[in-house]
Amino acid sequence: MSSGLDLPVSPLAPERFPQLPKVGGMQIATYGLGLYKGTARDDLLVVHFPQGASAGGVFTTSQTRSADVDWCRESLAAGKGRARALVVNAGNSNAFTGAAGIAKNRSTVAAVRELAKCDAHEVFLAATGVIGEPLPDNFVANGVAKAWPSLAAPDWSRAANAIRTTDTFAKAAGETVDLNRRNVSIAGFAKGSGMIQPNMATTLNYVFTDAALGPNAVQALIARYCDLTYNCITVDGDTSTSDTLMLFATGAAGGEPIDDPDDPRLAGFCEGLHRVLKDLALQIVRDGEGATKLIEIEVGGAVSDVSAKAIAASVANSPLVKTALAAGDANWGRVVMAVGKAGEPIERDRMTIHFGDHLVARDGGRAPDYSEARATAAVKGPEIRIRIDAGVGGAGRATVWTCDLTDGYVKINGAYRS
Amino acid sequence: MSSGLDLPVSPLAPERFPQLPKVGGMQIATYGLGLYKGTARDDLLVVHFPQGASAGGVFTTSQTRSADVDWCRESLAAGKGRARALVVNAGNSNAFTGAAGIAKNRSTVAAVRELAKCDAHEVFLAATGVIGEPLPDNFVANGVAKAWPSLAAPDWSRAANAIRTTDTFAKAAGETVDLNRRNVSIAGFAKGSGMIQPNMATTLNYVFTDAALGPNAVQALIARYCDLTYNCITVDGDTSTSDTLMLFATGAAGGEPIDDPDDPRLAGFCEGLHRVLKDLALQIVRDGEGATKLIEIEVGGAVSDVSAKAIAASVANSPLVKTALAAGDANWGRVVMAVGKAGEPIERDRMTIHFGDHLVARDGGRAPDYSEARATAAVKGPEIRIRIDAGVGGAGRATVWTCDLTDGYVKINGAYRS
Repeated sequence: MSSGLDLPVSPLAPERFPQLPKVGGMQIATYGLGLYKGTARDDLLVVHFPQGASAGGVFTTSQTRSADVDWCRESLAAGKGRARALVVNAGNSNAFTGAAGIAKNRSTVAAVRELAKCDAHEVFLAATGVIGEPLPDNFVANGVAKAWPSLAAPDWSRAANAIRTTDTFAKAAGETVDLNRRNVSIAGFAKGSGMIQPNMATTLNYVFTDAALGPNAVQALIARYCDLTYNCITVDGDTSTSDTLMLFATGAAGGEPIDDPDDPRLAGFCEGLHRVLKDLALQIVRDGEGATKLIEIEVGGAVSDVSAKAIAASVANSPLVKTALAAGDANWGRVVMAVGKAGEPIERDRMTIHFGDHLVARDGGRAPDYSEARATAAVKGPEIRIRIDAGVGGAGRATVWTCDLTDGYVKINGAYRS
Repeated sequence: MSSGLDLPVSPLAPERFPQLPKVGGMQIATYGLGLYKGTARDDLLVVHFPQGASAGGVFTTSQTRSADVDWCRESLAAGKGRARALVVNAGNSNAFTGAAGIAKNRSTVAAVRELAKCDAHEVFLAATGVIGEPLPDNFVANGVAKAWPSLAAPDWSRAANAIRTTDTFAKAAGETVDLNRRNVSIAGFAKGSGMIQPNMATTLNYVFTDAALGPNAVQALIARYCDLTYNCITVDGDTSTSDTLMLFATGAAGGEPIDDPDDPRLAGFCEGLHRVLKDLALQIVRDGEGATKLIEIEVGGAVSDVSAKAIAASVANSPLVKTALAAGDANWGRVVMAVGKAGEPIERDRMTIHFGDHLVARDGGRAPDYSEARATAAVKGPEIRIRIDAGVGGAGRATVWTCDLTDGYVKINGAYRS
């Protein structure tokens, strides 16, 4: 399935689409609305929870967020975290579409209410693609009606493919974990490749579990692990108008619902959820537009975790750092520059920088044992790790993941809309 | 003269190096230290004020600023704004060079004191080029001694060329203005092309005048007009460790010195200084690495000037906006995204966006009279103007200038150090 662009698959893509566990209590259908002209791809995803699910979500903090994001935020509050259906289209973001965007949502929700016999606020929406182009009224609603009869047990690959835009591969992750002596499943998929610097969550990301969880627990857990995963990735420092990360818990695995996010019985589930979200988030970076390298920036010794993250993000978003690493140039001076411009407390003459395991900078200068060969070796491969100690002796630490900046990014984004 | 890289001249370069007025009371020499291997270019600039000058400057706010910036800040305070000499080298920034960097400054200042018979704090230093590579002790000092005998009336083109790094053309501007019924000259030159998002000043920029001004006036005026010019440009959102903008006033035009920056007799001088600084700052954007378009982002209707500038900078630094404009794609939806991610107060459903004179967005959506042809025409040429009204009815306004993002930027910065 194509994005409409003829992009080669990212060299950082996983070898194959993962095996995901079955998640009971949900059905999926996909359909081709035809928003990607000249291709036969599916661009509409419909998820149905016949017995309902607990839902939680985090959304973009953009001031120009899409009508769909507005709808989901409102529905989570009004519907007390209950979900019966989710409708996502690719090819048009329904952001900055004014009254037409609200009309598209209204007609889509009306169609789902009729089909699923549910309340309006049990229906969640999302859209991704070009900004500012209103869709005809009922366009998505009509697609939902066409897709509905084909609802069936999840085909995760179809689902993940249906929401791709400039993604070069479909992204999914999942595992089976123990919850209170029952096996429960966690499965999720994601899309995203550019306009990636989430401020609450990144692009579109859906995680499903058959665990029996109340809406409080779902909301608290998705927010907690979003902060450690999605909110720590960046491709280009741009923040989407549509960023959405949602978790749905169907309860089909059985057992008494747990609604306290700090319930000790959730320990194994939490670890599994964290791993799945991190896996998905890193797949988005691996598919960063034009990416050839996955870069991990780890900052310690800062005054706070927030400060550490600001320093890491400054390095991760520096175009000069990213272009040097793209070229396999161990240009650690640019890391010094990016640490300096962050405006966070650091000690210039006490900070240290490692490329891989090689200490490249300390005492306000190049490390005495600096080896150009070793530093270069650390940045040659497809995965690069840079560690920075801010030198102020604090306990603050954070990790941010990004990709390199290549002419592929420029080419993709000069061609996207037109 | 070459930067060491084989870069074509920016298509946005001025047709020719400008005619600058004579500035009395100063001499210039250049010399080739050989920091650009394989080229015969000059990479050292020495400026001498035989009778001294009033000096003022603004410098990078980077936490990893260079030893030279530390020296200049200290000297301006300790020397009460008096200058006798300025030494600048290209090819090595002397940033993050620890004790070696301080030693280089000490030996250079000692050499100048001997030659100019002046105090240490009357000597100003700067360096630009690769970060983190210490120079041998006395390397620059020896160059100064070699250059000194050739000091002569300013050859502005030689001076501007001697401090270039990845610049594809030498940048200078100047004019003659009336000050208290005397003709006085203002002449300046600049270097900078990448690592450009000044937080106090950009890269290396020197402006000279023969006006009789005291150090208070010099410092206040350079800070005031820096804020409206250099602090409003960005190429890549990266902030240099060496950013320096200095103004020297020799007083050779005669007259009683003026030391109050708000003295009404300075009105014409201030306007001239503002124009010269804006001209130099925009030349830096015109030579943005890989640039093919100069982009002006004007924001009004914001809650404050600071907020307007943050919104403008968010648009100016968005790689998605910059790559779209590079391709001549009137992708105004990405401008909406970049306004939204700024996190500043805006009204999504009241903001407006113009591309050139064409209204592309209003009422939370595409403008009713939107014309793809007119929007595209506004972004086809080498100069693009985008106007945004934040829609909150405030008086806050700001203008930021940037360039587009092309594969040229990626190529230049993958090749710079190695």
